[in-house]
Amino acid sequence: MKINGVPTRSIWVDEADGWTVHVFDQTKLPWSLETLSLTDEDQVAHAIRSMQVRGAPLIGAVAAYGLALALRRDSSTENLERVAAMLAETRPTAINLRWAIERMVRVLHNQPAELRAEAAYAEALAICDDDVETNRKIGEHGLELLRDIAARKKAEGRGDEPVNVLTHCNAGWIATVDYGTALSPIYQAHDEGMKVHVWVDETRPRNQGAALTAWELGAHGVPHTVVSDNAGGHLMQHEKVDIVIVGTDRVTRRGDVANKIGTYLKALAAKDNGVPFWVALPHSTYDPRVDDGVREIPIEERSAAEVTDLTGKAADGSIVSVRVVAEGSAAANPAFDVTPARLVTGLITERGRCEASEVGLAGLYPDRD
Amino acid sequence: MKINGVPTRSIWVDEADGWTVHVFDQTKLPWSLETLSLTDEDQVAHAIRSMQVRGAPLIGAVAAYGLALALRRDSSTENLERVAAMLAETRPTAINLRWAIERMVRVLHNQPAELRAEAAYAEALAICDDDVETNRKIGEHGLELLRDIAARKKAEGRGDEPVNVLTHCNAGWIATVDYGTALSPIYQAHDEGMKVHVWVDETRPRNQGAALTAWELGAHGVPHTVVSDNAGGHLMQHEKVDIVIVGTDRVTRRGDVANKIGTYLKALAAKDNGVPFWVALPHSTYDPRVDDGVREIPIEERSAAEVTDLTGKAADGSIVSVRVVAEGSAAANPAFDVTPARLVTGLITERGRCEASEVGLAGLYPDRD
Repeated sequence: MKINGVPTRSIWVDEADGWTVHVFDQTKLPWSLETLSLTDEDQVAHAIRSMQVRGAPLIGAVAAYGLALALRRDSSTENLERVAAMLAETRPTAINLRWAIERMVRVLHNQPAELRAEAAYAEALAICDDDVETNRKIGEHGLELLRDIAARKKAEGRGDEPVNVLTHCNAGWIATVDYGTALSPIYQAHDEGMKVHVWVDETRPRNQGAALTAWELGAHGVPHTVVSDNAGGHLMQHEKVDIVIVGTDRVTRRGDVANKIGTYLKALAAKDNGVPFWVALPHSTYDPRVDDGVREIPIEERSAAEVTDLTGKAADGSIVSVRVVAEGSAAANPAFDVTPARLVTGLITERGRCEASEVGLAGLYPDRD
Repeated sequence: MKINGVPTRSIWVDEADGWTVHVFDQTKLPWSLETLSLTDEDQVAHAIRSMQVRGAPLIGAVAAYGLALALRRDSSTENLERVAAMLAETRPTAINLRWAIERMVRVLHNQPAELRAEAAYAEALAICDDDVETNRKIGEHGLELLRDIAARKKAEGRGDEPVNVLTHCNAGWIATVDYGTALSPIYQAHDEGMKVHVWVDETRPRNQGAALTAWELGAHGVPHTVVSDNAGGHLMQHEKVDIVIVGTDRVTRRGDVANKIGTYLKALAAKDNGVPFWVALPHSTYDPRVDDGVREIPIEERSAAEVTDLTGKAADGSIVSVRVVAEGSAAANPAFDVTPARLVTGLITERGRCEASEVGLAGLYPDRD
């Protein structure tokens, strides 16, 4: 999408040298837009672990380039397998990471070693291009939902109200290569002139909503309001939310949805208030090998320091970390939760929308069983 | 309860001069324990509005002393009515504020002007003493629930596990005069040697959980873990919460519960996971004049700056405010939400426990209709 009017992707290969991989350092957003140069697989692994790059689709793309960088220096099968295994372990919950690595290994395994690096760059680029096209289509299928709401509001004489979407965490263009998943319909609605307004959950503890979603919506010009994660239920009780759209890190065979911690609470509130709760995902997030999300999906436990300490911009413009929890108190930090399929109104994919169920998913992805 | 072993109340009259009112500045916690000296009604109003004092029962007590301070200088009926009206408007949601002011006015109205100041101090002290005794009894009635859980765990061979309580915001001793409401059963359980552990919701945007509940539990020695507000549903899905106990700012005739924003989301998660959800309240929080909480209780909308900016302790020990929301993004800050009675397992009062319903409440408070 656009930053100050300039269309931008979240990952690209250096035009001058043809091999260095560039991404934005998302831990520096929204305060500064800094570009990282990744030149080997260890830098890639560090960028994923430290969440300099994050977002299920984007970490798949950057891991693919991590393999390309590794094969440039050592294109042996042994190195391919070593680096694939190493990168797959960087984060446990999002399945796109493994999906991208498996796709790379499948393509590269049977290539002669001397062609592997070049083939890896080509395949990583294909993954990126596919992601952009996939997310564009997700946006089209989600846009239909927003158009329906706008039409209904108009019919009810509320045509001057915006379509109010609530989202959690960041499933925007910087969580993908472009467009985003949950935000793709919103960008397309805004770009076609629909009046749309986004309630942005701040998404503690890492504040991806307040820092990333608010930043990218602002940079593209989409009206939005940041709220604490606690506020969504109250907003729904008072009919201030027309639809919830979130992204996901993994959707199981039966339609359970792993996503950023707190998503489940919003799904419960949506159900309780009759607000549609939709989940946007590319095919690479669907994991038919897992059925019961709550029991089977590994939930990453991240550092307690992400809860006890917070970084922001001080009055003098400096970026400062401050402790916000009483001294001596312990903290826990589960990073994801699982929303059972029964709470999900439906899934928005690049192939269309479906019910969050085995039947729904198998109908769209008969080839993925 | 205790600070470093010393039993402490949250509000008291100066022993030396006999009239200045002292409270802790809760906006300075947990970093420093600073005592404020309140000497007139405007200082009291400022302390309530700025949340230097907060917590439904405590703001009732401090408002009572605000009237006493005002009557010291001008004990006319006109001044009594003016200050009563002014203090009642400082915050809209918690009903204890109005309850305490109405009790004071009722007692003072028919007193001769020359006796009013003294009578006001006596009545404010009586409100404080009543609050302590009320909260002690709430603790006893809540303690029975915790004992039942401990006994059940023991019978199931899980006697080495603590009783895990989740709480939201701060309904501890510093939200009252002593003991607290939701935390009173926890303190009593801990003091009788029960193994109890508290999941403390950080409670954005003002972090009363991370700053106040964690601080007071730590100061009294009660084991606890701070989590982001997003985590509670996940903890309940994985059977890490035995019971939720929260305080409240107003309970309606039919048992709807106004409390800190986000409480409703925890009630939904508790219901979805079969976790008991209890609300602790003194009689002064029961408002039989209101029935439908979602429609009728005024919800305070506080400053957006509480969402966009956050105060904490920097590495050099200084207390710093930092912005945590992308520059240019708007924020909204509803401070309370309402949990419908259907989601509440029961109410814990000084008169015992009851169903969150008109029948339940009328049974305990036949005199309040």
